[in-house]
Amino acid sequence: MLSKNKIKLIQSLNRKKDRDETGLFLIEGNKMVEEALRSEFKIETVICTPQFADQHPEMQSRAKEIIEADRDSIQKASLLQNPQEALAIVMQPEPNTPELNLKTELCLALDFIQDPGNLGTILRIADWFGINTVICSENTVDVFNPKVVQASMGAIFRINTWYTNLEKFLTQTKESWIPVFGTFMDGNNIYTESLTKNGIIVLGNEGNGISESISRLVTRRISIPTFSTNPNKAESLNVAIAASICCSEFRRRE
Amino acid sequence: MLSKNKIKLIQSLNRKKDRDETGLFLIEGNKMVEEALRSEFKIETVICTPQFADQHPEMQSRAKEIIEADRDSIQKASLLQNPQEALAIVMQPEPNTPELNLKTELCLALDFIQDPGNLGTILRIADWFGINTVICSENTVDVFNPKVVQASMGAIFRINTWYTNLEKFLTQTKESWIPVFGTFMDGNNIYTESLTKNGIIVLGNEGNGISESISRLVTRRISIPTFSTNPNKAESLNVAIAASICCSEFRRRE
Repeated sequence: MLSKNKIKLIQSLNRKKDRDETGLFLIEGNKMVEEALRSEFKIETVICTPQFADQHPEMQSRAKEIIEADRDSIQKASLLQNPQEALAIVMQPEPNTPELNLKTELCLALDFIQDPGNLGTILRIADWFGINTVICSENTVDVFNPKVVQASMGAIFRINTWYTNLEKFLTQTKESWIPVFGTFMDGNNIYTESLTKNGIIVLGNEGNGISESISRLVTRRISIPTFSTNPNKAESLNVAIAASICCSEFRRRE
Repeated sequence: MLSKNKIKLIQSLNRKKDRDETGLFLIEGNKMVEEALRSEFKIETVICTPQFADQHPEMQSRAKEIIEADRDSIQKASLLQNPQEALAIVMQPEPNTPELNLKTELCLALDFIQDPGNLGTILRIADWFGINTVICSENTVDVFNPKVVQASMGAIFRINTWYTNLEKFLTQTKESWIPVFGTFMDGNNIYTESLTKNGIIVLGNEGNGISESISRLVTRRISIPTFSTNPNKAESLNVAIAASICCSEFRRRE
């Protein structure tokens, strides 16, 4: 039985303030709950149909609480227009400085990404391309925002995200000669530029690109050239699309 | 003055049935209206603030009707949460078989893309990579859906989209030995596969990939390999992300 209080808790997780206070976040849909069950994240509550519970006996040991409910009750609790058979309340992991060896490893750094769909998609891209860490500026949208979680398609359980003062972080890496790549309209052609197996790829805000203070810390300016010959051609690519092309180019050359 | 009837017309353009009946579609936001003014599309009505009208005198000759309104009235008419200073009602161009020379040209073919954001993003990618034509299966989401239009960021004014029976179309191209590429989980590695300067790249449905009847017509099966070593790794990439990596790979080698 799904209580009114539980529904209230679920819906409160749409707000950052409430997520911060409770240390919880919401995941929705059969696949996402299955991903959570396979992950190492602590699961507070699974709310699902009796059928879903039967199909996932591992839930018993993984979730503190299991609430069976019919689809109508799940619909009432859900933030989605078309909810499925399961949703879950999951504990946010403790924010830890990630184990990151930038002398051998590639990571992404996000400078003020605002759109939840973009952040989720970028996590999914990082996951695909074997990039384990995504560093987020403090003004980047919260990774536990339900729209980020859903767009990540489970990548949220595998990628280390770390919110920090990006300017400070990049200033520190400067001393150790880690290459800091950044995408700019006037950077060097990514297809012909020499790329490295390690370092940081900075991606900027949807409207304004990489901020000035961060730009100054980028040591390798790159650009994805357009192939359009139309005089009114597109001004830019979506940031998640730029991220995917960068990751693809860095990885294919390894 | 923005009449109730005009507001009703604007909002009706959120429905395919009404768009089909009127032959109109809706665009929102300053940049989109500026793109429309620069395009060759016929503009029925621009609704904008007096300031926007002053800044765009070319509107007088481009739009049949200009309605000046304050931001509150624009808010009432808009389908967006945060509308800007202008929106416009635009005529859909006549659906024409595109001028397409597949012996020299590359085009995209979409097999049942359902999500408007994905279709809009794919148009924006095609625009960036100088791909002029996007062929859509008849069950692909309507290109004049307001969410497609917005996500295209103006690409809708430059890309020829053509809805047709994809199976028939691909069957016809078979006779002329046009290469038909398609993305599959088990295709050949796109990074090492030889690619061509011309032909068709087929992209499949968000959940199910390329349908069986279309699969049979693909002559070159390709795949974007994952670089993840995580045992629970991602199952797939978003279709717009896959499109961007394909376009990038095809174009960079030219």
